[in-house]
This record gives sequence, structure tokens and C-alpha cells, in this order.
Amino acid sequence: MQLICPDRPGLVNRLSGWIASHDGNIRHADHHRDEGAGMFLSRLEWDLNGFSLDREEIHKQILQLANNLGGKAQLNFSDEIPRVAIFVSKQSHCLIDLLWRVNNQEMKMIVPVVISNHRDLQNICKQYNVDYKYLPANNLDKSFVEKDILNTLNEYKIDLIVLAKYMQILSPNFINQFPNIINIHHSFLPAFKGAKPYHRAWERGVKLIGATAHYVTQDLDDGPIIDQTIVHISHRDEVEDLIRKGRDTERLALARALRFHLRRQVMVYQGRTAIFD
Amino acid sequence: MQLICPDRPGLVNRLSGWIASHDGNIRHADHHRDEGAGMFLSRLEWDLNGFSLDREEIHKQILQLANNLGGKAQLNFSDEIPRVAIFVSKQSHCLIDLLWRVNNQEMKMIVPVVISNHRDLQNICKQYNVDYKYLPANNLDKSFVEKDILNTLNEYKIDLIVLAKYMQILSPNFINQFPNIINIHHSFLPAFKGAKPYHRAWERGVKLIGATAHYVTQDLDDGPIIDQTIVHISHRDEVEDLIRKGRDTERLALARALRFHLRRQVMVYQGRTAIFD
Amino acid sequence: MQLICPDRPGLVNRLSGWIASHDGNIRHADHHRDEGAGMFLSRLEWDLNGFSLDREEIHKQILQLANNLGGKAQLNFSDEIPRVAIFVSKQSHCLIDLLWRVNNQEMKMIVPVVISNHRDLQNICKQYNVDYKYLPANNLDKSFVEKDILNTLNEYKIDLIVLAKYMQILSPNFINQFPNIINIHHSFLPAFKGAKPYHRAWERGVKLIGATAHYVTQDLDDGPIIDQTIVHISHRDEVEDLIRKGRDTERLALARALRFHLRRQVMVYQGRTAIFD
Amino acid sequence: MQLICPDRPGLVNRLSGWIASHDGNIRHADHHRDEGAGMFLSRLEWDLNGFSLDREEIHKQILQLANNLGGKAQLNFSDEIPRVAIFVSKQSHCLIDLLWRVNNQEMKMIVPVVISNHRDLQNICKQYNVDYKYLPANNLDKSFVEKDILNTLNEYKIDLIVLAKYMQILSPNFINQFPNIINIHHSFLPAFKGAKPYHRAWERGVKLIGATAHYVTQDLDDGPIIDQTIVHISHRDEVEDLIRKGRDTERLALARALRFHLRRQVMVYQGRTAIFD
Repeated sequence: MQLICPDRPGLVNRLSGWIASHDGNIRHADHHRDEGAGMFLSRLEWDLNGFSLDREEIHKQILQLANNLGGKAQLNFSDEIPRVAIFVSKQSHCLIDLLWRVNNQEMKMIVPVVISNHRDLQNICKQYNVDYKYLPANNLDKSFVEKDILNTLNEYKIDLIVLAKYMQILSPNFINQFPNIINIHHSFLPAFKGAKPYHRAWERGVKLIGATAHYVTQDLDDGPIIDQTIVHISHRDEVEDLIRKGRDTERLALARALRFHLRRQVMVYQGRTAIFD
Repeated sequence: MQLICPDRPGLVNRLSGWIASHDGNIRHADHHRDEGAGMFLSRLEWDLNGFSLDREEIHKQILQLANNLGGKAQLNFSDEIPRVAIFVSKQSHCLIDLLWRVNNQEMKMIVPVVISNHRDLQNICKQYNVDYKYLPANNLDKSFVEKDILNTLNEYKIDLIVLAKYMQILSPNFINQFPNIINIHHSFLPAFKGAKPYHRAWERGVKLIGATAHYVTQDLDDGPIIDQTIVHISHRDEVEDLIRKGRDTERLALARALRFHLRRQVMVYQGRTAIFD
Repeated sequence: MQLICPDRPGLVNRLSGWIASHDGNIRHADHHRDEGAGMFLSRLEWDLNGFSLDREEIHKQILQLANNLGGKAQLNFSDEIPRVAIFVSKQSHCLIDLLWRVNNQEMKMIVPVVISNHRDLQNICKQYNVDYKYLPANNLDKSFVEKDILNTLNEYKIDLIVLAKYMQILSPNFINQFPNIINIHHSFLPAFKGAKPYHRAWERGVKLIGATAHYVTQDLDDGPIIDQTIVHISHRDEVEDLIRKGRDTERLALARALRFHLRRQVMVYQGRTAIFD
Repeated sequence: MQLICPDRPGLVNRLSGWIASHDGNIRHADHHRDEGAGMFLSRLEWDLNGFSLDREEIHKQILQLANNLGGKAQLNFSDEIPRVAIFVSKQSHCLIDLLWRVNNQEMKMIVPVVISNHRDLQNICKQYNVDYKYLPANNLDKSFVEKDILNTLNEYKIDLIVLAKYMQILSPNFINQFPNIINIHHSFLPAFKGAKPYHRAWERGVKLIGATAHYVTQDLDDGPIIDQTIVHISHRDEVEDLIRKGRDTERLALARALRFHLRRQVMVYQGRTAIFD
């Protein structure tokens, strides 16, 4: 359970008291006061085994609790495994990395479908027994393809979209309808927002490049950052070397961020994230 | 308050319940289950303001609680600032760094005295208004100088020793009498234990060197590790370059470790540490 | 061309003079004086286009030059692409990573065959159209299987072996007969040589773990180090987390080291390497 | 000697030929082709001992050589030690770090004077026997104080200015008259250019912060980058923690960059730097 509310005295006591009063055994408890923002964040994990309330009742009481505190709560049951759609274009490195991690039991998620505006990565999905929907981009009118995408998400009962080097921009309207999206951006945000970050990094002559995994919001590349990784470069690196080195750091940032998300270790508030690792 | 005990259900509830029942408002709570070791670790910070027990009574009840749980507890009051003796030989980088951090309010500690087997760093201490005890080493019989050291620690009411490049080995007997010691070792332990780690790192041809801040135990260089830092090296680096680069990473590892210790974020168990940052 | 010889005045002049006198245009020149070892290392790359000597004659003259200088030279033509056999056991992460990099043109090598003491990774190789030789280990007598391996290397005209998590120890006799081997060891050498490094790292309570890619010599885990990578760990990480985090850093160290090797950027001398990147 | 010119065949031969023809023994030679920019960069170091030309003649011939190649050359004699003025405001960490490194023979430079718009760091300079010029800022008209600064630079025969947390912006006119300036900016440029980078990094919720040492040009924070360092942060870090962690990474980036500069390992071209380390 994750709770965010304005800070005030006694919040830890109140939360742990509620769990104890229903015979819950707390497995993990992590609290954080963001003094700059005046917010209190709490992440609690407890055994349902022996707990005196059923899932529906837990849900109801927690929403009420959050309401009373003027905050918001999110409840997850660890036996509910998220269904994830991975979006790709032509580059394979993040896709292969994620599918391998799922196969290798590093990541608790089900990937029933990969959606792409190109046919290039179809074979990889076949090898991993994942459906592949080829939905080519139409730059004149996004609304048709986005409708197809939404239908596909619906059909596969998708909980989360991962943009694993999907080189299309989703419309604000789409994000409104399906707001649960993680993206990997190939720069150390907020540096080099937008297109061709490696070319611009090379031109600027930076000594480190990075990758940023973030939640997607209406403001392009401005969503809450989950994880960032960097790699050293030198004057000997041409743009294609930046792109090559970038791939290694991109797949790592995305995998780390997604893992945090899947383990419900990420809390979003005021455009930022807290990572309870 | 820090508590370590064998893991069992209900421990979080029990601890937070005890605090709540005496009207304590929990400010920070961090718990950890070490499944490999079967241990439960808890770090709790609460306001004494309004708490229904006085310091003495808190002490008594917490010791009893720990006892009941078959564990150990440590209690600190945040208004009690540790008195630290820094031990040095000839190298100044860690000493200057620490004194500057104290002056700059980065570290909550009082440094009334620096102890050294050389006179080289006396002037630096004068600049920072810190007493300097020159206690030259006697390699034939350590016991005399160690007696002098213990007297000095006593005289200055020292809580903690920091070995900031003190190039003498303290005897097991000394460590027995004053066990609260942090050391900085100039290698990435357990690699290159013992003498001349940079020379041996150069000979071995490693591509990274490191520094390790650890608690001192009877087993040389085998005490619980608090922090480790590393720095890249290349074939262009000679031994003196390793030593130079090493200084930067040594002072950082020591400062980070000491800060964790001073904020009571370190818990030691089974030869390892948990850092509640 | 790579040359290693005892240092003396005028070596750079002599080498570049020889190339210039045969109308060679130097593309890259990198020299290094290892003062600690008293050695001079040089790496020169020049266009054969317009060069007045043929390949055979170049070979002859360079060997003679090296001989005169009391050193050793190695000559490579950039249009000769090495044939590499990858050895694996059950873990797939390094294998998939390398095959993907070859496919993605990151690495100039041909992988005609994968050799394994298990059948687990056969399917992956099929997907990449790479032959798979299942040669089960015989712990009583390695000599039979090693003979089979040598025959396979011969049959596929292999230039280099990459041990990509091959959990068998090759005999000194084998290494003698085929000395061109790169291994990935799952620790930050020289820490945790030998078996189960992650378990021992966890027990020791280190705060960083690493991986080391090195050339294999008769002395187990003591060969010249090519690359090392590290990753941070905390007390929250159990042994299986170290293993998981370790996989990411292992595949990176191996890929980086192999890339250096394939681009002939590595020079080995006195048990160490110089990396001309 | 550093040379930058448009790339063409035979440049390495030509340079090393010129040195050899005057009996020079090349100690270090490093060349780089920047294919993206179509430029050739060369750094050559040779013994003057036994060289057949005197300093004046070397200067003349090298300028002519560079001219013929349509490029630019820079000549330094390693026995000429740069005279550096350090500019500070109220923060001491970079100043103390640099003065300590000079004292410790890590940096070959002479610091005859520190210039500041505040009196705070006067005592530190006294301890290191460095003159301190208090030249308070006048925000209405910079020209007067900048005239005083230029006079001071002249008086102390300064070769290089290091802005070590000098919280004033130098006018384009000043930079025009004294263009040899290194600055430390407290962000990972080009992210968070301008004022209060740590506050903005905290608000944006980045997971890494950095520092950038760069040459100062007319375009604020857009000069050629010499070195960048980073440090991890978490949601637990408030703005003051970013500032504290930032200090450690700032002083490191500045010291590394300055060392590269002093060893003449930095070449600037097209707004970027090549570091021949």
C-alpha cells in the first residue's frame, strides 16, 4: 500500500495502528517526509494471511483513510501480476533485454503483445512466443492508429505500456485515455530533450551521456523521472559511438525503472518520484 | 533507536505500538529483514517532545524489550554530539577534509584532539584550533604509547576514533579497551589487504582502484565495511598516479562512512553493516 | 601493428620513419612509456593503399625490427576478421548479449560455433544460426573432452575462445595448446578469486560488486585484466540480488573487453594490459 | 606542441619527420582524427636536450608549419609554470582543495593571488601565504571593478583565471581582454544552465546531479567542456543535500579539468575539447 498526504504528526502511528488492529503482520514499512514539499509518503507491505479484512474491505477502508488525511492511496496485491505491452520501432536492444529478463524471472510481468510501427522485430517476438501487432504510423492523422492501439490494449487487458525505443509521439488524447506509460529517453534529462539527443550531445562536447526512464505525461520528456544512468565518452567517440554506448545505458535504465515500478517501489508526487528500494 | 534481533512475525507492530502507547510521534522508521541471515533490523526515530517516558526510563524499557526479543538495541539522543579523536601520520588529505567538513557544518561531531606519531600536521590543527598530541610510535613495545593514547582519549572524553591514514597498527589489546574505531583502508577490500595496496594494484594491473571505510576489529582489514568508493585507472597511471587518485577516493569514502555513523544510520551485525540512508 | 620493447630514445622516430620511408600514411599512432616497467609500447595503424611493401614483406621486416629492438611485435590486417568460439554452460546472459552485438554490427567477429557442457542454450544458437556443440564435462578425466574441443576449434578454424560463463576449468595442457582465451570472472579481481564469488561477497558485506574480463593463463583468475566493471549493492540485497545485478555488469565487462581485443587495442606485457582506446 | 588543422593524408609523417630532422627525441605523441568535424589534432612532446633549434626558432617554424597546413598550433615549454589567479566568493571548498593540491605537488601552477568579492576566505589564503585582493562587486557598473581586476592580473603576471565558485558574471568585454578562464558550474551542463541549478534539479526530480568544468566564453555556460562528474541522489535528499553532495563533485571536476589544462592535455576546437590523457 502506498499513501501520499500532507505531512502532520502521528501518521506512522496511525497507519501501523490500523494494520495491527486488523491482525496484519507488517513485512516492509518505509516512510519518507519530503520537507521541501511538505508531504508524507508511506509504503507498507503486510501479510494478508490472517488479516481480518477481505480485499474489498481493505480497498474501501484505505481509500477512506487517504481521504481523511487529504491524500491519495494506492493498493496493490502482490499476487496480481501486471500485463505489459512493449512498444518498439526498429531498434531491438531494449526489447530483447526486457524479454530475456522476463524469461529469466527477473521481472514479474506478463508480456502478451508487442506493438510496433515497423515489421523489423517480428521474428524476435516469435522466438519468445509473444504476439506482434504491426500498426504503421500515419503522420497525417494519428487518431486512427491510436484507436487501433487502444483496441489492442483493451483486447490484451494491458495494465502498462513500456515505450522501448518507440519512435512515435503519442497524442495528449491517447495519454489521457491510457496514462500508465513508461518511456526510455536517450539523454540525461533535462539535457537534450526532444529529437536526436546523441547528435546534439556530440556537438555540445559533453563528457558523459545518459539515459532517462520516466513516466509519460502530456509534456513531452517532462514526466516524473524514475531512473537515470550515465556512461563516459571522450573526444574519440563519434556520434555512432555515442549511439552504441547509449544502447547499453538505455536498456539498463529502462530495466531498473521497470523493475522498481513492477515491485511497486515507485511513488509519484508533484512531478517527481520517490523510489523505495 | 536501533534494534537487531532474530526475525519473527509482528516485530514492526510491537515496536511502533510501544512508541505510540507512550505518545511518541515517529519521525523516521526503517526496517529490514535479512533473509539470508534470518535477522530483523529496525531503526526508529521519534520526538521526545511529549513522550511520556524520561531518558532513563526509555533506556531501561528498550533494553528490556531487546532482551525479550533475544536481540540487541542501541539508543541515541540526537542532542548528544559525539567527541571524535582523529589519528593521522604524515598524509594530510583526510584530516583537512574532515576538519573542513566539521567547520562547514556537514558533520555533527566535536574534534577536540588529533593524535599522531609524527609532527607534520601540527600546523593544520593549529589553524582549526584543535589540540595536537604527538605520540611517536615505538615499534619494539606498543604498550607504552597505547597507554598514553588511552589516557589522552580519557582526558578528552572521546567517543570515537577515526584513523585518517594513521600508519600504525593498533594492538588487539587496545582495540579491546577502545572498540569504537573507524578506519580508511586504501584498497577495495577484500582485495589488497595489508601493506602497500596501490603498489600491488599496479603490479596486478587492475582497471579500478578503491577505498574502504570500515570499523576496526581484531582481524586486520576484516572489520565491517561501511562504505567503498572506486576510481578508474589506466595503463598510463604509474604507482604515484594511483596514490594521487586514491587520495580523492579515500577522503570521500571516509567522509561518507563517518557521516552515516554520526547520523546513527549504520547497524552492524554478523560482520556486516546495514546503512539506513 | 603493436610493438613492445625496452624503452630507449628515438623509438617513435624510428617507427614512423620506417612507415614513411615506404610511403605509408599513418592513420593512428599511440605510444606509451611504462616508466615503472621500463617498457615502450607502440600501436600504429596505417593505410596499405599505396604502401610499397606487400603483406609478406611487411611481416618479415616488422619481425626483424622487433628483434633488433629486443622486443616483440604483432601485426594484424584489419580486413582479417577473427573467428570466435563462445563457451557457455547454463547461463544465457553473456551469450545472448554477444550474439546480439555481432548481429548489430557492434563487434567485428564471426561466431561459427558455441561449445557447451549443457544442452540448455541450444535453442538460442539456433535462432542466431550458430552451430552448437554439446560436449559434456567429464570430471574424472578432462583430457577426452578437451581433445574433442580442440578438434572442434580446429574444424571451425577458431582464432579466439570466449568463456561466457563456462563453468568448467580448462587444464593447463589445454591452455598451452590454445592460449588465446578471454574469460569473464564474476568478481572484482583479485577479490574473491575462485568459486562462488557472489556468496562470499555477500558474506563479507562489501558495498560494491564487480566483474573482470581477463585473458586466461595457467594461473586461474590471475591472467592479464582487460576490463572491470562494478555495481553498487546495499544490505537490502540478498545473494540472489547480487547474482542478478552481477549479470548486468558481467555482460558489460565482457563485451567491452572483447571489443577492445577485436579492434587490436589491447597490448599484454608483464601480466598486465595497456588499452589503447 | 599542439596542432589542429583540417585532416589530410601524411600529417603524422610530416610532424614526426620535422622533429626527427632536428634530432628531437619524441617522448609522447598522440594524434586524433575527428571524422565528424574533419579535423586532425596532434599533441607532441619531445626533448629539447640535443634539439638543433632554439626556442625562438622552434616557435617560428611551428607557426609557419601550422600556417601551411591551414591550422593553428600552440607551443609550451614544460619548464614554464603557469601563474594562476583563483576567484572566489564565499564558498571555500574548491579554493581549499586547489591550494592543498598545489601544496601537495599535485598541480604544477603558482597561485600568487586570490581575488574575491567577499572577505570571508581571507584567512584561508593567509594560511597558505597567498595574497588576497578584496574587490567588492558593483552591480550597477561592472566596468570599474573589472578594471581593478585586470590591473591585478597584470600586476601578478597571471596566465590563467580559475573561477572557483565566483558568484559574479564577468562581462563580455572582460572576457575579450582576458580570455584564458576556467569555470566550475554546479550542474551537469547543458542541463540547468544559469542560476540555482541545485534548486531546479531538485524540483525536476533528477536522480543524478553533476558538475561541469569548462572554459569561459562570451556565451554564459556554453564554453568548451573539459570535465564532468556526477553523483547519485535520491528522494531523501533535500536541496541542501544536493548542495552538500554537489560540493564534493564540483571540487573533483574542477581539479581534474585544471590538471588536464596545466599538463597541456586539452585541445579546444569547434566549441569542444579533446583530452589527451
